[in-house]
Amino acid sequence: MNRPNIVIVGAGYGGIMTAVNLQKQVSPEEANITLVNKNDYHYQTTWLHENAAGTLHHDRTRIAIKDVVDFNKINFVQDTVESIDPKSKTVKLEDGELSYDYLVIGLGFESATFGIEGLEEYAYSIQNINSARLIRDHIEYNFAQYNLEKEERQDLITIVVGGAGFTGIEFVAEVANRIPELCQEYDVPREKVRLLNVEGGPTALAGFDPELVEYAMNRLEEKGVEFRLGTMIKKCNEEGIIVEKDEEQEEIKSKNVIWAAGVTGNSIVQESGFEVNRGRVPVRDDLRTPDYDDVFVVGDCAVIMNPDSERPYPPTAQIAIQMADTTAHNLKQLINGNDKLESFQPNIQGTVASLGYTDAIGVVFDDTKLYGRSASIMKKAIDNRYLLKLGGVGLLLKKGKLDMYH
Amino acid sequence: MNRPNIVIVGAGYGGIMTAVNLQKQVSPEEANITLVNKNDYHYQTTWLHENAAGTLHHDRTRIAIKDVVDFNKINFVQDTVESIDPKSKTVKLEDGELSYDYLVIGLGFESATFGIEGLEEYAYSIQNINSARLIRDHIEYNFAQYNLEKEERQDLITIVVGGAGFTGIEFVAEVANRIPELCQEYDVPREKVRLLNVEGGPTALAGFDPELVEYAMNRLEEKGVEFRLGTMIKKCNEEGIIVEKDEEQEEIKSKNVIWAAGVTGNSIVQESGFEVNRGRVPVRDDLRTPDYDDVFVVGDCAVIMNPDSERPYPPTAQIAIQMADTTAHNLKQLINGNDKLESFQPNIQGTVASLGYTDAIGVVFDDTKLYGRSASIMKKAIDNRYLLKLGGVGLLLKKGKLDMYH
Repeated sequence: MNRPNIVIVGAGYGGIMTAVNLQKQVSPEEANITLVNKNDYHYQTTWLHENAAGTLHHDRTRIAIKDVVDFNKINFVQDTVESIDPKSKTVKLEDGELSYDYLVIGLGFESATFGIEGLEEYAYSIQNINSARLIRDHIEYNFAQYNLEKEERQDLITIVVGGAGFTGIEFVAEVANRIPELCQEYDVPREKVRLLNVEGGPTALAGFDPELVEYAMNRLEEKGVEFRLGTMIKKCNEEGIIVEKDEEQEEIKSKNVIWAAGVTGNSIVQESGFEVNRGRVPVRDDLRTPDYDDVFVVGDCAVIMNPDSERPYPPTAQIAIQMADTTAHNLKQLINGNDKLESFQPNIQGTVASLGYTDAIGVVFDDTKLYGRSASIMKKAIDNRYLLKLGGVGLLLKKGKLDMYH
Repeated sequence: MNRPNIVIVGAGYGGIMTAVNLQKQVSPEEANITLVNKNDYHYQTTWLHENAAGTLHHDRTRIAIKDVVDFNKINFVQDTVESIDPKSKTVKLEDGELSYDYLVIGLGFESATFGIEGLEEYAYSIQNINSARLIRDHIEYNFAQYNLEKEERQDLITIVVGGAGFTGIEFVAEVANRIPELCQEYDVPREKVRLLNVEGGPTALAGFDPELVEYAMNRLEEKGVEFRLGTMIKKCNEEGIIVEKDEEQEEIKSKNVIWAAGVTGNSIVQESGFEVNRGRVPVRDDLRTPDYDDVFVVGDCAVIMNPDSERPYPPTAQIAIQMADTTAHNLKQLINGNDKLESFQPNIQGTVASLGYTDAIGVVFDDTKLYGRSASIMKKAIDNRYLLKLGGVGLLLKKGKLDMYH
C-alpha cells in the first residue's frame, strides 16, 4: 500500500468543503486524508457579525466537524498550525508534525490594521467565534458599567465601527437592531446611546450599486447610525479614536471600537516562504501555488484576478466554496496519476449584504437589484444552500435560517 | 388643612414596607406622605447574589414601585438623597429639597472594606441591581477573554469570594451552580476553573449550628469550592489578592474578586450628623433616633441590641420588614397626637441560607434544623410571603419563586 497523504490545514469554508468533497469522491484506499484544525468545529465566518452584535448565538454559527466529516474516511487532528515547510513537505503543529504528499492551505484571514496606531491594542475585530463572543460581552460589560459611574460616561455607550465595507455595514446593522435590547437589559436610555460608522472612502459599500447603498444608509440612519464618510481613523487609544476629515481632527471617545475594515491572508503562509501579494498567494489557474505542484490554496489565503476588472475578486465564502470543488477535483486527478487539471472559474451568482435579520440589499444574476425582505430571503437562501451542501438536510434543519419569511 | 409631611427616604425592605403600611392605615387627609428613592424600583437585596452569579435575572428581583405603592395616596419622588438636616427638618436631594414633619430613614447598607488595601478599587461587591449585573457581566467577560489569550491566564477563570458569612456562602453556592453553564458558553474546560472562598474567621457561617455549617461546606466542596478559613485578605490589586494564614502570605491571582464580607449603614446618615455606632443608628425602642423625636430609622441603618446575647441583631430583611410595621404604627400615633408609641420587638422566626436553587440550610422555630430540599422550600416560602405582604397575590404570581418543589 502506497497511498498518498493529503493534508488539509484549516476547516473554514475552503478547507472543510475540500474535505467533504474528497470524502465523497476519493476512497480510503486511494489516499490517506487528514484535516487539521485548531478547534473541533467549523464556523460560518459570514455570520460572526451577528454573534459579535449579540443578535445570534455563536452556537448557531459553529458546526461540529464530526457532524460533517466522516472520521472513518478522514483523519481529524485538532491542533494549531505553526508553520509549513514546502521543501520537506511537512506541516509543523503545536503538538506534532505531519508530512504530506499533497497539501491544501485553507488557513483563512487575519485582520489588517494598515499600521494605524493603537488599533491592534485598543480596537476589537471580528475574526472568529472567540473574538465575536468577546465583542458581544465587551459591549454588554460597558453598558453594565454605565449606571455605576458617578460622572456620566458617554464613552461607555458609544459604539464605533471602523469601515463601511461589507462586514462594517452588516455589523453596524446588527448592532443597531441590538441596541433597544441592550438599553432594556442595562437600564440605559435609548437616546443616550451613540452608534457611529467611520469610513475613509467617500462612500459606504464601495463598488455596490449606488441606489442600493443609498437604501442601506437611509435604513441604518433611521435606526440611529451616524455615518462619517471620507473620514480616516488616525489613531486609537484607551479613550477612543482620533479621526480626520478635510485636515481637521476630532476625538471620538468610545470604549467600544470595532475595526471591520481590512483583512489579509493568514500570516503563516507568508512566514512559511510562499510567494504572496498583500498577504495572499497569487495561485495558478488550477489553484496551486506558483512554486509548488503539490500545494493548493483555497479561500482567503488565495488571490484570483478578475480579468474583466483587472482587480482581484474579493475573498468571499462563495469563492472559497467554489475553490474547494476545483481543488478536490484536481487532487483526485493527481492521486490517479492524471496531470490534466481543471482551471478555476469563479461563478459569481450575486452578492447580498444583510441589514439585520429581515432586511438586506443585493445584486443577483449580474443586474437584478434586491431590497428589503426579498434580499433578506435571498441571503438566507444562500446560507441555507451552503449548509445543505456541507452537511445535508440534517445540518440544514439544525443550523439553517429556516424562518425565511420572518 | 394642616396635614403633617411624612417623608420616607429609601425604598428598600424597611422604607417600602413603611410606605405600604401607611397607605393602608393612614388616609391622605391625615398626612401628606412622600417616598423618595433613587430608582423607580424596589429590589430584594436577599436575591442580589443570584443576579450577580447570573442564575436569576435581575428583573425577577426588582419590583416597580408603582406596582406596590398607590400614587394617589403617596407621592413618589425619584431622586438621590444627598444629605439630611434634622435641625431644619429638610432632606437635600440631587434635584431639590423636601421638608418634613416626620422622617423615616431607610437608606440601606454600604459595603465595608475595613480599610483593606485595594479592595475598594479592585474588588467588586454586591450592593444593588447595577453592581450585581456588573459582577455577572464581569465574570462572563473574563471567561470570554480566556480563549483569546496566547498564554494560559488562570486568573481570568479564578473566582475569589471574600467572606464566608451569609452573603459570601449564598453567593459562592450560586456561582458553583453557574460554572457548568459558563464553561459551556465560553468553551472553558470545567476542571480549569477555580472557585475560592476566603474567610478570616475560623469557620464559615459563624454563629450557625455547626452541623449545618458542615453540611453546607461539604455540599459546596463537592461542587468544587475551595475554602480558605482562618485566612485574611491583606491586599487586593489588579492581579488578585494577597492572603495570610499563620503568618504566611500567598498570592492568589484572580480577575474576579468579589468582596462579600462586610456591610455598614449608609454613610449619609453619619455625614448628616446622626449619632451612629459602626455606621448604624442605635435607635430607641420606638425606632426613633436618640436625638430626634421626629426621625425614625428602619432596616440596615439602624442597630438593635439583642438583650440575651448582648450583641446587635444582624441586619436582615426579616428585621427591616418588622421595623416597618412598628414605624408605621408609631407614625400613625404621632400624627393623631398620641404620644404612646410601641416598642419594637424583633420576632426572629428562623434563618435560612440558600445553597443554590434547590438546596439550603436553616434553623426555624428556635431549634429546628433544616437541610436540603426542605430548607430550600422554607427559604422560598419566606420570600413568597414577603411578596404577598408587599404587593398581594398579583405580585406573588409575578415575582414569586413558585416552583417551590423544583
